[in-house]
Amino acid sequence: MRRIAVEEHFVTDAYFSLLPGKMSTPHVVPGGNIVNQPDHSLENIEIRLKIMDEAGIDMHVLSIGPGVEQLDAALGTKITRSVNDALAATIKKYPKRLAGLAAIAPQDPAAAADELERAVTKLGLKGAIIKSHIQGEYMDNPKYWTVFERAEKLDVPIYLHPKEPSPDLIKPYLAYPGLDGAMWGYAAEAGLHAMRLVLSGLFDKYPNLKIILGHMGEAIPYWLWRMESKGPSPERKLKRKISQYFKENFYFSTSGMFFQPALQCCYTAVGADRILFAVDYPAESSADGVKFIDSANMCDGDKEKICHINAEKLFKL
Amino acid sequence: MRRIAVEEHFVTDAYFSLLPGKMSTPHVVPGGNIVNQPDHSLENIEIRLKIMDEAGIDMHVLSIGPGVEQLDAALGTKITRSVNDALAATIKKYPKRLAGLAAIAPQDPAAAADELERAVTKLGLKGAIIKSHIQGEYMDNPKYWTVFERAEKLDVPIYLHPKEPSPDLIKPYLAYPGLDGAMWGYAAEAGLHAMRLVLSGLFDKYPNLKIILGHMGEAIPYWLWRMESKGPSPERKLKRKISQYFKENFYFSTSGMFFQPALQCCYTAVGADRILFAVDYPAESSADGVKFIDSANMCDGDKEKICHINAEKLFKL
Repeated sequence: MRRIAVEEHFVTDAYFSLLPGKMSTPHVVPGGNIVNQPDHSLENIEIRLKIMDEAGIDMHVLSIGPGVEQLDAALGTKITRSVNDALAATIKKYPKRLAGLAAIAPQDPAAAADELERAVTKLGLKGAIIKSHIQGEYMDNPKYWTVFERAEKLDVPIYLHPKEPSPDLIKPYLAYPGLDGAMWGYAAEAGLHAMRLVLSGLFDKYPNLKIILGHMGEAIPYWLWRMESKGPSPERKLKRKISQYFKENFYFSTSGMFFQPALQCCYTAVGADRILFAVDYPAESSADGVKFIDSANMCDGDKEKICHINAEKLFKL
Repeated sequence: MRRIAVEEHFVTDAYFSLLPGKMSTPHVVPGGNIVNQPDHSLENIEIRLKIMDEAGIDMHVLSIGPGVEQLDAALGTKITRSVNDALAATIKKYPKRLAGLAAIAPQDPAAAADELERAVTKLGLKGAIIKSHIQGEYMDNPKYWTVFERAEKLDVPIYLHPKEPSPDLIKPYLAYPGLDGAMWGYAAEAGLHAMRLVLSGLFDKYPNLKIILGHMGEAIPYWLWRMESKGPSPERKLKRKISQYFKENFYFSTSGMFFQPALQCCYTAVGADRILFAVDYPAESSADGVKFIDSANMCDGDKEKICHINAEKLFKL
């Protein structure tokens, strides 16, 4: 079975060299996932390909690890161009093994939309990744919608990736080391961001917009019934039920969630057409990710959808 | 099959009459679940019993709906005594149909522990309910541990019930009506509270302490693998794995979560011994709750555990 892993991260040496003052900028979120381990670097792609071979993964859909959302707009935009050029050049060398999502810097929304278009039309990238809040703001704020408008027009998905909770949210998560990260806080941040996108009416304005959530949907599939059990709020004027947006506009990847009970919940809540295989390289083990999806309790046809068919359609691979 | 529903709320007329200035006190959280519909009142118990009969529910384990945690300590303590006396008197009339959890006001920790002891030993109540944060503080703060110490000594559980996110957490949830409530924010609040209790070492100090979470565990079962996928933090000195505390010290009720994918996730993540049937009356339909658990995909033996055996053991019914 072909296996395409869709949330696999990288950095470039240029990313780090472009950062001001040895990454000591206050715009970089503390603990913000900036890992420069050798196998993470795009410059060491052979190490990655070997790990993919050993695990039985045919293709990585690559995306920037650390993100650029917390940097100054001009610098962020500059870095995304450098990162996307390097990414496209690397993919060109291994087109059967690699595809990529663009880095964009929505703190300059127009520039981010333009860089997305350049990355897709000129560089052959397949969408973009956003690492949750933009300097404390969520993208339900209409000033960012030009990015989503462009993504819909280009028919490419946006991967809404977590990071530590936004400044207005983070304080109660700082009480214990790690609580603001993968343990709990990442999901609190990205899940809330996704809920706000839905409630804002974004998908009524851009009904064909596609958003991907990692980590088995940041617990949204578990909540799909309760989130609308109280019925529509009179103040809310959405065209569809909240759960419908998640079933019709969202995809859910298995990144960093090699847990059969959660996969089965997601599978029965949203269906095989909406799930994408992912590892979350280099944070998680590729071999463990493959073992996890191979041992999932579902028919081969649905496993094929999750392992490659859905990704082939969504990213036009 | 006997059905005991364990998160069924009530208010008393005295509760409202004791509140200052028509509940306009700033200590009451906005939207804080203060519903005075007739069938919610302990004074109208016959309405409740009829609904239970129609749905096929044998017993309600009753708990205060609005909570007292945001009131001044002296008033909160006064109200809990009134509420618990009224609750015990009502239960005395229908001992086969009703049991109860005490209201306590942890803003005076010693008084709350004493009221818990009085409620259990003198009034025959079976534990206590706490509606999450105590005026912005979480109960991982050791100043509240005397309450947990007493609960362990009395061998009764504490029901950790949600409310709107604490003041340090709530701002990003206020962007849309309802987002801070059952739709998403309640779980963010109560799930975080539970995580903080575990990370604090509370259960190493009180290893036999029992905590109940509603709403299918506020999404914690979905997260049970990922919450420890990064391994133990060097700063953390817990005796067990994080997931072990949830499997060994926590119970998870079905209140307000009539969603088979979530039940199956919880069932396969923590097992039938840890799940309790609940409706979340009057917020949810008792008939729907019964239909939900009756149609669950599991053996009759496990269904018996969830519907009554676990509750009989935990509450000594």
